Amino acid sequence: MLQETGNLYLAVADDLARMITDGRWRTGDRVPSVRGLATERRVSPTTALAALRALERRGLVEARPKSGYFVRLKLRATAALPVTRPSQRPQPIQIQGRVGAVISASLEPGTIQLGSGLPDPAWFPTDVLERMLRQAVRESPRLLGEYGPLIGLAPLREALSRRYAEFGCTIDPDEFVVTNGCMNALTIALSAVTRPGDVVAIESPAYFGFLLLLETFGLKALEIPTDFRTGLSVEALSAALSAPGGERVRAVLLTSSHSNPTGATLPEESRRALAALAQKHDLAIVEDDIYGELSHAGERPRPIKAFDASQRVITCSSFSKSLAPGARLGWVAGARYADAIRLRHLTTSVASPASAQRAVAEYLDSGRYTRHLQRVRAKCAENVDRVADAVERHFPAGTRMTLPKGGFLLWVVLPAGYDSLELWERARAARVSIMPGHLFSVTGRYRSSLRLNCSLPWTPRVDAALATLGRLAKQSMTAGGKS
Amino acid sequence: MLQETGNLYLAVADDLARMITDGRWRTGDRVPSVRGLATERRVSPTTALAALRALERRGLVEARPKSGYFVRLKLRATAALPVTRPSQRPQPIQIQGRVGAVISASLEPGTIQLGSGLPDPAWFPTDVLERMLRQAVRESPRLLGEYGPLIGLAPLREALSRRYAEFGCTIDPDEFVVTNGCMNALTIALSAVTRPGDVVAIESPAYFGFLLLLETFGLKALEIPTDFRTGLSVEALSAALSAPGGERVRAVLLTSSHSNPTGATLPEESRRALAALAQKHDLAIVEDDIYGELSHAGERPRPIKAFDASQRVITCSSFSKSLAPGARLGWVAGARYADAIRLRHLTTSVASPASAQRAVAEYLDSGRYTRHLQRVRAKCAENVDRVADAVERHFPAGTRMTLPKGGFLLWVVLPAGYDSLELWERARAARVSIMPGHLFSVTGRYRSSLRLNCSLPWTPRVDAALATLGRLAKQSMTAGGKS
Repeated sequence: MLQETGNLYLAVADDLARMITDGRWRTGDRVPSVRGLATERRVSPTTALAALRALERRGLVEARPKSGYFVRLKLRATAALPVTRPSQRPQPIQIQGRVGAVISASLEPGTIQLGSGLPDPAWFPTDVLERMLRQAVRESPRLLGEYGPLIGLAPLREALSRRYAEFGCTIDPDEFVVTNGCMNALTIALSAVTRPGDVVAIESPAYFGFLLLLETFGLKALEIPTDFRTGLSVEALSAALSAPGGERVRAVLLTSSHSNPTGATLPEESRRALAALAQKHDLAIVEDDIYGELSHAGERPRPIKAFDASQRVITCSSFSKSLAPGARLGWVAGARYADAIRLRHLTTSVASPASAQRAVAEYLDSGRYTRHLQRVRAKCAENVDRVADAVERHFPAGTRMTLPKGGFLLWVVLPAGYDSLELWERARAARVSIMPGHLFSVTGRYRSSLRLNCSLPWTPRVDAALATLGRLAKQSMTAGGKS
Repeated sequence: MLQETGNLYLAVADDLARMITDGRWRTGDRVPSVRGLATERRVSPTTALAALRALERRGLVEARPKSGYFVRLKLRATAALPVTRPSQRPQPIQIQGRVGAVISASLEPGTIQLGSGLPDPAWFPTDVLERMLRQAVRESPRLLGEYGPLIGLAPLREALSRRYAEFGCTIDPDEFVVTNGCMNALTIALSAVTRPGDVVAIESPAYFGFLLLLETFGLKALEIPTDFRTGLSVEALSAALSAPGGERVRAVLLTSSHSNPTGATLPEESRRALAALAQKHDLAIVEDDIYGELSHAGERPRPIKAFDASQRVITCSSFSKSLAPGARLGWVAGARYADAIRLRHLTTSVASPASAQRAVAEYLDSGRYTRHLQRVRAKCAENVDRVADAVERHFPAGTRMTLPKGGFLLWVVLPAGYDSLELWERARAARVSIMPGHLFSVTGRYRSSLRLNCSLPWTPRVDAALATLGRLAKQSMTAGGKS
């Protein structure tokens, strides 16, 4: 960041944000004054002020009249969320019936969509992309008449390779296959490394889209205990792999950073250990890195693939959360499975639209992406904090939640006995969608939890919707509710 | 056609073409003079001449100086191609190893790609589409920032519904899901109606992409005897379904018109019988209709779906052979399986790029599509005829081939004992690609057959490539060759 003209203040802001998220500065602490900060960091007072304002926008500090800036972040009850304890037996999956109705409802027009997993469209530089796409089409109309290279246009694969290099991950442009978004990349990756009946280890709770994917391919799920800050327990996975039946686990499918729905990010030592486990047990890691670019502050985590000595980590992502959902551009880098992945892609998709690939490659090459990401990351931080605040204000006493350090999803745990499925039904009638927790587990656990989308532009209407949810939650206590 | 201004000559040409393809006019017959035709058809002499010239471009008639036009079509040895007799036991599939290398080679730059299944990019109105795509992007930049309706934009689904209505097939716009091309549509359809281990009935020979798809989903293939003119034998299928084990057949996957590689088109009575069989045995028909718009002459066949009284026919297609391969726009209409199909699409792709959908909807609404198709159909007819002529001139005596009435693929059967896999290897060294026949069967049959792409612009270089193939074919006779 430092070398980038005009973004010095963001580098300072990131540095200060780390002081807060690492706990060196605590809630209520007074932040150095503009002048003090300028002297300490050897920047101009203008830059220091801009950095503090950036922190304010992210919801990390607040200005108090005539007193300066104070750390605002509340260390919500996240530390109290225990590691999950799912059933540790491989389970066949039948979740389709459960999911279909909920997803449809989550996207109903006229509903406040706190249940969807989509980012706010206003975050994205659609004006610039629009211009670049028009230019790409004008310059290469032939892209409409032919498939182009089936694995994707070279300029995009080269731009991706350079982007990964920026955060310490070496991937050859020819290792990428460009796909129709990230779920499509994961579909292709998973189908290339498994056969029906195989066991796949996943986080618990896990994104319901992963469960649907396993069901589609006739795979069994092994849910692994998961920490809401540090993600899948590598220790528990290691034990499961060494236990009888462990050899039937053919792959691990997980979101390595700012996971959906836990918000957890694997520490580097876990990434290293996972890559080593994959080598030891000859299994594939299918890494979903779609939220990796959306850290609220500090460095972008290096993908597990950066620690992969034995070429067993397949990394997948897309621009759908970070740049242009409508472009439907994802990718997979297939490591030792690259040939099989290319063939699966050819079989099930043939190729992806080339014009959009050209436009996005152009955007990445223009140098705008880094600055754009800074804005989106600040938005994520600010919005998650606002929604979390509202949950604290409106929800039943004893409600806990995650403290994600990236992305825009919040996992809320109601006190024991409350039932998020009943809440979902009541909220639906009130035109508010949520994602009930039982969708994130094969066995229907997490009935008292729910996932909220924090990306919606913050308005009184959203606050009112959260108040409604809180009120309805208080009514949704049932004797039969399972935690 | 008749009501369309300026296209009257094409209607006359189509009518005359039918006289030829139906055998009412035979090779060498003299065609009525311009004046005679004008009188007989009550059109102007200009229109009559234009019709004859259209037939000439399609390779159906030839002008002889001072004598007029004569029927040129050779009824090649197609009638002699017997119905195939594949193994009638369900087979697990392991074809990936075989296919990968051949596909890669078929697309090698610098190679004359007679092995690919791609149409000539010059056929397509990329200039008009380019303009419409730029306009769609300019008018709706927000389409880049959001997914839009996950099943596809309403204007495109409505335009598709109207197009199907034009050829006698009623499909509600909401039944469609827009996909990333036709293979993606078939992938989603097949995975929605089968589970791993199920049996799927297919043509024999069948498109190798279908075999890869079955392998991906752990499905078994039941190859059904197939006629090179009338397609899959419904009688044989019916017998297989009623035989022991027939209840394990969950779906039929087939290309209903101008099939790949046979060129066969199911007659209407077979379509009706297939739909009835699906009802009787409660199985799904997954119809690939991608070549349906490419009839060389006469009417566009009605999809099997038009005969589906019990909502068990899923029809899939795309614009990849007829309008814009690079737009990657396909679709599936899911009949009674529509809910499951929507969920599979959501799971594996989420949504398709919206800008291209808008542009193509605009193109369809502009009325240009019908006229464009006339041109492409004429190109297909002309090119298939030219390649067939060259095969007759250059290949070993006794070589037979199909006489497709649509599309641009030709299936060539070398005399017994010739080996198309050896020919493939020799041709590859000579920088000519073909698709060897053993890829079109689970058990590696059709070793003396090959598929040729006739869409390449006809040049001396293509003729020379076919001459090279003929020469190499003569050298590829082996003792071990299986027919």
